[in-house]
Amino acid sequence: MKATVYVTLKNGIADPQGLAVRNALDSMGFDGVKRVRIGKIIEIELEDGCPDGSKVEEMCRSLLANTVMEDFTFEMSGEKR
Amino acid sequence: MKATVYVTLKNGIADPQGLAVRNALDSMGFDGVKRVRIGKIIEIELEDGCPDGSKVEEMCRSLLANTVMEDFTFEMSGEKR
Repeated sequence: MKATVYVTLKNGIADPQGLAVRNALDSMGFDGVKRVRIGKIIEIELEDGCPDGSKVEEMCRSLLANTVMEDFTFEMSGEKR
Repeated sequence: MKATVYVTLKNGIADPQGLAVRNALDSMGFDGVKRVRIGKIIEIELEDGCPDGSKVEEMCRSLLANTVMEDFTFEMSGEKR
């Protein structure tokens, strides 16, 4: 069983990394790029039968995402929460 | 228009960051976690009408992904490539 967690910065939070990528794309001649935001994908391979979605949510809240600045969603082997 | 790029390590490439997260989850009492892999999500907001999917692929190959060690996929406002 696999959980895929998507962690992205909340709107309004500055993203210096995204800004640097945007400027780099611009200087490489890719015009038309308004904004770039960078987040994380965390793929967690779980032993069958455990743990379930609520445990993955707990992992996100306690370690994988900084809930002050980041939002997270996750899907268990294919269905989005 | 928006392009969402998913960059993940190729299979077989060591992921020390993923290993650290796995060990941290284990020490926090989350058992049943076999493996953790960490990648990037890059959200690119584009001006309407430009650039199209081929340009985004070019951005990935030239800057956003290290194609020696990483795989990438992207979707333009919702349809996966």
